[in-house]
Amino acid sequence: MARAMLGAIEAGGTKFVLAVGPSPDRILARHTIPTRTPEATLAEAAEWLAGKGGITSLGIGSFGPVELDRTSPKWGFITNTPKPGWADCDIAGYLGQALGVPVGFDTDVNAAALAEYAAAGGAGGGLAYLTIGTGIGGGIVLDGKPVHGAAHPEIGHIYPRRHQDDVDFAGICPAHGDCLEGLASGPAIIARWGVSLSQLPADHPGHAIIADYIAQACHSLFASVAVETIVIGGGVANTPGLTQRVAERARQLDNGYLPGGVRHRIIAPRLGGDAGITGALMLAETAGRA
Amino acid sequence: MARAMLGAIEAGGTKFVLAVGPSPDRILARHTIPTRTPEATLAEAAEWLAGKGGITSLGIGSFGPVELDRTSPKWGFITNTPKPGWADCDIAGYLGQALGVPVGFDTDVNAAALAEYAAAGGAGGGLAYLTIGTGIGGGIVLDGKPVHGAAHPEIGHIYPRRHQDDVDFAGICPAHGDCLEGLASGPAIIARWGVSLSQLPADHPGHAIIADYIAQACHSLFASVAVETIVIGGGVANTPGLTQRVAERARQLDNGYLPGGVRHRIIAPRLGGDAGITGALMLAETAGRA
Repeated sequence: MARAMLGAIEAGGTKFVLAVGPSPDRILARHTIPTRTPEATLAEAAEWLAGKGGITSLGIGSFGPVELDRTSPKWGFITNTPKPGWADCDIAGYLGQALGVPVGFDTDVNAAALAEYAAAGGAGGGLAYLTIGTGIGGGIVLDGKPVHGAAHPEIGHIYPRRHQDDVDFAGICPAHGDCLEGLASGPAIIARWGVSLSQLPADHPGHAIIADYIAQACHSLFASVAVETIVIGGGVANTPGLTQRVAERARQLDNGYLPGGVRHRIIAPRLGGDAGITGALMLAETAGRA
Repeated sequence: MARAMLGAIEAGGTKFVLAVGPSPDRILARHTIPTRTPEATLAEAAEWLAGKGGITSLGIGSFGPVELDRTSPKWGFITNTPKPGWADCDIAGYLGQALGVPVGFDTDVNAAALAEYAAAGGAGGGLAYLTIGTGIGGGIVLDGKPVHGAAHPEIGHIYPRRHQDDVDFAGICPAHGDCLEGLASGPAIIARWGVSLSQLPADHPGHAIIADYIAQACHSLFASVAVETIVIGGGVANTPGLTQRVAERARQLDNGYLPGGVRHRIIAPRLGGDAGITGALMLAETAGRA
């Protein structure tokens, strides 16, 4: 078998991160391009990847919603996103054709979850990756495989209980108002307090409020899927102390009840900002296999 | 290979249901015994099963918490239950020894989820089984396999948002107060209104309140694991109209957002009260395999 050269794309609403390497833990070249129209963005991505001298497969971790059902004619599409121009975009099909290689495809957060799962040595009890940024999303890996279900997780849209010091803010989710994303995403924080979480004074109640909402999502995941590890990534998660506050609040919410006990843990990404692109390389590794 | 004869136990806190049959959909004999001390109950169960003339494997779906980690010396144990006498009970080990057969072991709700998954023809997008009764529990099957994680799901202990007409009741969960089980289990309903849900008048607000709490759990499962199907079983779920009210309320909570769309559905058990014992027979079918 010829040596593999993996290509990968972390496709975000603001930028596309591109990379090539012989294995997920060895990135030989990397490039970032701004997200514009699908035509311009995908053409530039294909050109850069083609210029790297012959990738053998491609992995894409994409913003969503996406179609992951292998039996659907729309597999590999970004589906009904509100992002102008991108609805119904056959991102996997276009790039697979343009580069002439098999494509592995999943959500950006499932890709990041895959990479963090591998970085944790294959967390026996499963792993969830939450990103808290412009939006809130999550991916789950159980037994080494991303969880799909009827579509893919959209954990940002559960309804946390309102914090007692945060009862007046209506939330900003167009569909749900005060769901998790409507309350705890970066834009929701700015809508309430005018600045990002990391810019709030250390004694500002916002720190406890946001940690409480994220901790409720973590408790729900521990209680409903029993994942062992939850990794908190994304821009908001870079706020100093946030991960620890979330972990502490989740322990309070559990109150020593769950049978997973101390095995349940909430941590920062081991791969830092590289989780998504590393996971996309992992998707390239298994592309074309059943 | 000799013909299989499967033995099964649905081990509950009030009663043990026992069955034998050549396959999960063919129960040849069935017997119910009251749950007393572990010694008396397990001895009677073993005696009945042994008297059926040579089972080749045993499946147990048990009340919990239980240890499901195959690498743990306590695999197959009921662990720290508050039920007197049953903490740290090696239920799978005792019965496997007594009957001299391999044992398949999981939670009662994972067993029920397995059976409902099979009854649905292998629901492509996964299935969750919720039981709303003396307690509230849930099992999840994805890709044909029960979800374990660091331990097993305890979905009864998520925190739903309080319903606006139910703000004074403190909830009855010893660990969490007003978690889902503390608010919507059979005993919580009786604690509030003095009677069971099915005994409340049709126009009583309790119907909408309980449906709302269960619907929030369903929305959380749809959003976080994206399961296609949620089956609602257990005594409280027998209340006429409840499943439909839950399904309708969950649709309101989603507000057309989730990418799984109309594939997400909430239904009554296809197997009625037989889901648990059928799932235990399925556990027997795969007992001893990796």
